[in-house]
Amino acid sequence: MNTPIHNSAFFSLINKIVSEKIPFNKLLGMTVDSIEDDTIKIKIKMKDEFVGNYIKKNLHGGVISSLIDVTGGMAAFVSFYKKNTEQSIEAQKKKFSRLGTVDLRVDYLRPGYGNWFIASGYTLRAGTRVAVTRIELNNDAGKLIASGTGTYIL
Amino acid sequence: MNTPIHNSAFFSLINKIVSEKIPFNKLLGMTVDSIEDDTIKIKIKMKDEFVGNYIKKNLHGGVISSLIDVTGGMAAFVSFYKKNTEQSIEAQKKKFSRLGTVDLRVDYLRPGYGNWFIASGYTLRAGTRVAVTRIELNNDAGKLIASGTGTYIL
Amino acid sequence: MNTPIHNSAFFSLINKIVSEKIPFNKLLGMTVDSIEDDTIKIKIKMKDEFVGNYIKKNLHGGVISSLIDVTGGMAAFVSFYKKNTEQSIEAQKKKFSRLGTVDLRVDYLRPGYGNWFIASGYTLRAGTRVAVTRIELNNDAGKLIASGTGTYIL
Amino acid sequence: MNTPIHNSAFFSLINKIVSEKIPFNKLLGMTVDSIEDDTIKIKIKMKDEFVGNYIKKNLHGGVISSLIDVTGGMAAFVSFYKKNTEQSIEAQKKKFSRLGTVDLRVDYLRPGYGNWFIASGYTLRAGTRVAVTRIELNNDAGKLIASGTGTYIL
Repeated sequence: MNTPIHNSAFFSLINKIVSEKIPFNKLLGMTVDSIEDDTIKIKIKMKDEFVGNYIKKNLHGGVISSLIDVTGGMAAFVSFYKKNTEQSIEAQKKKFSRLGTVDLRVDYLRPGYGNWFIASGYTLRAGTRVAVTRIELNNDAGKLIASGTGTYIL
Repeated sequence: MNTPIHNSAFFSLINKIVSEKIPFNKLLGMTVDSIEDDTIKIKIKMKDEFVGNYIKKNLHGGVISSLIDVTGGMAAFVSFYKKNTEQSIEAQKKKFSRLGTVDLRVDYLRPGYGNWFIASGYTLRAGTRVAVTRIELNNDAGKLIASGTGTYIL
Repeated sequence: MNTPIHNSAFFSLINKIVSEKIPFNKLLGMTVDSIEDDTIKIKIKMKDEFVGNYIKKNLHGGVISSLIDVTGGMAAFVSFYKKNTEQSIEAQKKKFSRLGTVDLRVDYLRPGYGNWFIASGYTLRAGTRVAVTRIELNNDAGKLIASGTGTYIL
Repeated sequence: MNTPIHNSAFFSLINKIVSEKIPFNKLLGMTVDSIEDDTIKIKIKMKDEFVGNYIKKNLHGGVISSLIDVTGGMAAFVSFYKKNTEQSIEAQKKKFSRLGTVDLRVDYLRPGYGNWFIASGYTLRAGTRVAVTRIELNNDAGKLIASGTGTYIL
């Protein structure tokens, strides 16, 4: 999987799960931007109701942690998938329903200003049932807003 | 502050900030339940759009981390307030605008099933500018769903 | 296991592993104080070479995180054991060799002053292969010096 | 400070603090390898008494977290120094005595096999009093053994 997998059935599955099937992701407007090698990128657009600090008008920490959690989880799912590529899409879908976050650390590095934000996640430790992932969230100017580390279980 | 401060101007300020002034909190429907001694409790009601796992229908990890982050932040703010009780409400409001999360760890312990959820936060380390808080999130049956530890700066 | 298991073969196994078999634990002088219900307590005595801040003469953060990591790991091992009590001591020993820390958060709450320190660990989430534990480290005066949360895999 | 500062008085101060002045660092045999741009590297050699898993003979998680904590703390100290370069060495020394870890997350990614280990730390968020740093610990074969994120206060 060293080439982009934009057009694959796997990319379609992942994007459908992220942007349509999970209600809270839909509320936040998450869409998968790309899955390349080990890295998955997920995007959201700023909206008025995502504001945290009502004086500074920057992105709420909860939106940041939500995007980081989902991106880390999908990076973990990609790494589990790569260990089991022989499985059907149906089997993958079923597997996805068992994916859970064990724990997550988020570091809030700069105020979240921007029209959109993109989080990139990749796997630091990939087992068959437990994965640890690293996630970085940048704004539309390429500034690092937050980073995180999450542990996921299948 | 060893008695409930439900009726105080401080409670009103905190509840107004949490439930009305912060747009993303409003989207999630957060309300302050109580501020007693060192502990602040914040509540949300389950809604269809808060679902994470669309098969199990449980609360999304991002809603959990959002509620834990806000509750930890308000617990930190309460501890900063207690070190400076002489200040006016206006001064407190201004101070609040400078409050920020430095980092947060969330542990997802059980699936988030329930009609409502309540998070309790209190301070583990209270400095004049930096506070570390512990937060526990229970469902309406009193089951511990998630816990967290957050570091906040004023 | 609602009574102390001080005299059991399991307590002896755990104490032998903690205080004798693991070289770095031995360097730090760790001993198991008690295993009761879900809580395991492990103790160390202060020594000159454990000092971190050479002006304040308090306990080094690395000694604190070491004791917290070991205590969390043993709490996880106790919870795995309780799910499999039928197994022989030999089987338990073998299992222990596969126990590993996935991740650990430590919060340093107060300077580590004291003649000895004791860490208490218990399980927040107990699966068959993954456990999340909470650990508190107190000094000989009962002051909370540090706390932590760790995720372990078997 | 975009060039190596190997020969400077600041490097000497840092190396003396890390390798001689702090008793527990000395017990572990820590030495500063380099300070370049924003990155500080600190090294330890494997010793029999640093073993954690007595069957696998790999590095104890407590040695890993100790090295990661010290490296993150020194990276934070370097970033505080860079904001105040006009200060004398005496003032820096005094400042150092007030440096403390607020919290630390460590992810244990691979078993710690090797003759020596080196941790690299750099600052993700640099304030005047609070800094967040990222640390990676590699073995002598360049394998990533563990990574961490720490928050420090001056």
